Amino acid sequence: MNLYLDDLKPGDRFTSASHRMEAAEIKAFALQFDPQPFHLDEAAGRQSLFGEVVASGWHTASVAMPRMVDGGLPIAGGIIGTGADLCWRSPVRAGDELHGVCEILEVMPSRSNSNRGSVRIVCSTLNQRGEAVTTAEMRVIVCRRGS
Amino acid sequence: MNLYLDDLKPGDRFTSASHRMEAAEIKAFALQFDPQPFHLDEAAGRQSLFGEVVASGWHTASVAMPRMVDGGLPIAGGIIGTGADLCWRSPVRAGDELHGVCEILEVMPSRSNSNRGSVRIVCSTLNQRGEAVTTAEMRVIVCRRGS
Repeated sequence: MNLYLDDLKPGDRFTSASHRMEAAEIKAFALQFDPQPFHLDEAAGRQSLFGEVVASGWHTASVAMPRMVDGGLPIAGGIIGTGADLCWRSPVRAGDELHGVCEILEVMPSRSNSNRGSVRIVCSTLNQRGEAVTTAEMRVIVCRRGS
Repeated sequence: MNLYLDDLKPGDRFTSASHRMEAAEIKAFALQFDPQPFHLDEAAGRQSLFGEVVASGWHTASVAMPRMVDGGLPIAGGIIGTGADLCWRSPVRAGDELHGVCEILEVMPSRSNSNRGSVRIVCSTLNQRGEAVTTAEMRVIVCRRGS
């Protein structure tokens, strides 16, 4: 992780490694964090709006993060978000292969703190067909070089 | 889970049970979903912008969900979000006791589907001092009674 505010400009793009969503992992996450029947049980999934078992949206959001940390978005000092406007666009099913693409929209030095600033980034999580399953416009704090 | 679109109106409020964030749980989540040093290691936490180990923002977002499912937000058919505009307002540390409060902002029957509609909800996660650690404006699909 080595990019500072000074290194980033609108249009810069970063792509993460991919991750295959396994059925057991979808259920384990849902059991702990989102215990709704359509994330846990085949029959309940068929009867739901989705028509099948799908991953929790919070799982999809969370799964992109370690891939971003691990080189997808190499920000010095780590990825510290202050907010995210998140859209869940398509259901995620077992076997889906997800990866993240982030693009810098805006780079804003802080007016009150010369050591840092913030960037607006749009992060999309794409499946194996290139469909965006989530998009998130994130606001992230980034340090300046030498701070 | 038993409330339909017809049962909801702006101003309705729902409060979830509370959950104590344990140090081991903060590290376990971070290891799997957000492996950044300031979520995992005391020394790295002290050197970070936070000055201590804090929970991943995705962990804080995820931890409110089962409490909402489990009676905090009793929507018939479950909580199916299409989007969330999420702000991380204060760090969450081990020992913090979190609970969620959701308020209905707007109830919108679908124009194209008489069986459902959507609601805009503001969900805050509060700590033991009543400080909002996250706020999220969520858009959720809700079925109509008898659909």
